[in-house]
Amino acid sequence: MPRSSFAEIDCPIALAAEQLADKWKFVIIRNAFNGMTRFDDFAAQLGVASNVLTKRLTELVEAGIFEKTSVKNDGRAVDYRLTAKGHDLFPMLIFLVQWSDRWIKKEGGPRLNIASSETGEPVEPVQVKTASGVVVTAKLAEVSEGRGRNPVYREIKTLVDKRRLKCT
Amino acid sequence: MPRSSFAEIDCPIALAAEQLADKWKFVIIRNAFNGMTRFDDFAAQLGVASNVLTKRLTELVEAGIFEKTSVKNDGRAVDYRLTAKGHDLFPMLIFLVQWSDRWIKKEGGPRLNIASSETGEPVEPVQVKTASGVVVTAKLAEVSEGRGRNPVYREIKTLVDKRRLKCT
Repeated sequence: MPRSSFAEIDCPIALAAEQLADKWKFVIIRNAFNGMTRFDDFAAQLGVASNVLTKRLTELVEAGIFEKTSVKNDGRAVDYRLTAKGHDLFPMLIFLVQWSDRWIKKEGGPRLNIASSETGEPVEPVQVKTASGVVVTAKLAEVSEGRGRNPVYREIKTLVDKRRLKCT
Repeated sequence: MPRSSFAEIDCPIALAAEQLADKWKFVIIRNAFNGMTRFDDFAAQLGVASNVLTKRLTELVEAGIFEKTSVKNDGRAVDYRLTAKGHDLFPMLIFLVQWSDRWIKKEGGPRLNIASSETGEPVEPVQVKTASGVVVTAKLAEVSEGRGRNPVYREIKTLVDKRRLKCT
């Protein structure tokens, strides 16, 4: 039977996918990082149907990525703001901006400049590195099951090894 | 009218969302990074309906994230493999593993250990940094329109500024 929710799958990527992997959520989070907080502003800028936006914002609040707060002195108005968990998605957003600029055609150069507001220095491409600065790519990564265990990872490895045996 | 495709939106996040932001794609890409290449293996491990898997793989091939190649000496069999553009998603995957371990409850510690196969050193949390090593968070980022321009970014900023004026 096809699975509909990934929420019970004990794999970090599946769990993140369940909370994040939706194109409206990507652009909602983008707008929040740019300071947007109001339902009407999200709706107007995204050109998204109200029911679609409501569902996405509700799920993002339930996942603890956004929080809903009343606006001071403004009756029933509410703000949707990124929580600490939401703010912690910043490296993913910047990675996507850079990946997109590298791989999805754009004439004239990068679409955004991102720099440190403290030093003015531009940011580097987001990479995976060790403390001593060694860059780790997929081919130079050694992955193993952590203390927290990962049955899905083991399941994938078993299938991949079985296939390799069959094909050699 | 609600938008259905983001492919014509001139924003790096929207374009990346159009190609990637789907929960099946996240786990398909995860499995590919772990060496999986065959339709039947993806179908078996993911427990996904064939038509859903076919659609996702087709879109990933069209986006240039996967390539489809015939398997040597095996009749009609095909492999789905990450392209260079697909391999370049590695930092996003590792970021998601780490973000998930930080924010989506898991007793017993991290689910995966990731280290450099060259030095054995574990990887650091994926962050946004400048060349001199300054960490850039959302609050310490200075974002501006790049040479490639970004009309969507301007649109968002205009709405956010208008709202601020109204609320102060």
